[in-house]
Amino acid sequence: MSDTSSLDALIQALRRLPGVGIKSAQRMAFHMLQHDREGAEMLSRALHEASNSIRHCERCHTFTEAAICEVCSDPGRDMSRLCVVETPADQSAMERTGAFKGLYFVLMGRLSPLDGVGPRDIGVKKLIERATDGMVQEVILATSFTAEGEATAYAIGEALRPRGIQVTRLARGVPVGSELEFVDLGTIAHALADRR
Amino acid sequence: MSDTSSLDALIQALRRLPGVGIKSAQRMAFHMLQHDREGAEMLSRALHEASNSIRHCERCHTFTEAAICEVCSDPGRDMSRLCVVETPADQSAMERTGAFKGLYFVLMGRLSPLDGVGPRDIGVKKLIERATDGMVQEVILATSFTAEGEATAYAIGEALRPRGIQVTRLARGVPVGSELEFVDLGTIAHALADRR
Repeated sequence: MSDTSSLDALIQALRRLPGVGIKSAQRMAFHMLQHDREGAEMLSRALHEASNSIRHCERCHTFTEAAICEVCSDPGRDMSRLCVVETPADQSAMERTGAFKGLYFVLMGRLSPLDGVGPRDIGVKKLIERATDGMVQEVILATSFTAEGEATAYAIGEALRPRGIQVTRLARGVPVGSELEFVDLGTIAHALADRR
Repeated sequence: MSDTSSLDALIQALRRLPGVGIKSAQRMAFHMLQHDREGAEMLSRALHEASNSIRHCERCHTFTEAAICEVCSDPGRDMSRLCVVETPADQSAMERTGAFKGLYFVLMGRLSPLDGVGPRDIGVKKLIERATDGMVQEVILATSFTAEGEATAYAIGEALRPRGIQVTRLARGVPVGSELEFVDLGTIAHALADRR
């Protein structure tokens, strides 16, 4: 882009963000340097601070700045139910429904043998320890309804059921607000099988 | 996403990058914190350094760390030709062709009245000073062939021609490697009018 080494370094560093290629990185660098140096400084500080202060909750494994996250340390939550999600964003979606008052376990990933992500990488051993603490009676599997999410749910279910814990899965069915005509057939078949 | 203020600050800061919305920002923050803390630190440092060390070349206005950029201070360049481009990325594309040995003037933008970008914002006055230094004989307008790029070229041409400077524009025509059948009609009409 130019003969400036710190500009090249910035473009290379921006390319490490997911989904950012060389063209996007150039555009981002150009925008920040030309129109938003304040934003560049803000992002620089935010990255440094987050990278240094954020760790994993000892109980649920989500991102937190304390040893135990806010949800896990809330005495008002139902400690007998544990919801297993893939990411903090999934946990956040679940929280926003207001329909779940139990605790969480955040895998921070999902099984993906093709990418070399095995049960160890998503902390299944830690989840088993967490789920067998004597308080948890039901583990609700809320991983994605994709091939990898289903495989993750299956593996966790297989590991927990022999230990006497009730394992459930979010219901599959027709999404709220959709017309049957436009729903895919696999979903309709599941909704029919699980009718109530 | 979570109860962590430094994570929220990071997501908000990432949203200031062009083309990054809330979902992308969450995904970026999650990726950097979970899989690439080294990359996060690298980006933090690169942003800080670029933001503090990069300024504009006094002669051509491009990004540089010195007072005068490498191209402008190269004695081997043809000082009688000045190529006007919109961005450092455009300048870089022009350089990679190897077909131009003159100097550049980088507007760092283009006229866009709807966005409130006028002649003052793209440094037209500075360009006029630069082009009337006595050495420049020809100004080559290499702004984009979009409505805004054309308006920019027109405005600069109108400002320079009365000052006795030869003003030229990159040729419009059929791109190399294309089949006529698939080229848009406006381009073919221009190629026909400018046939040689």
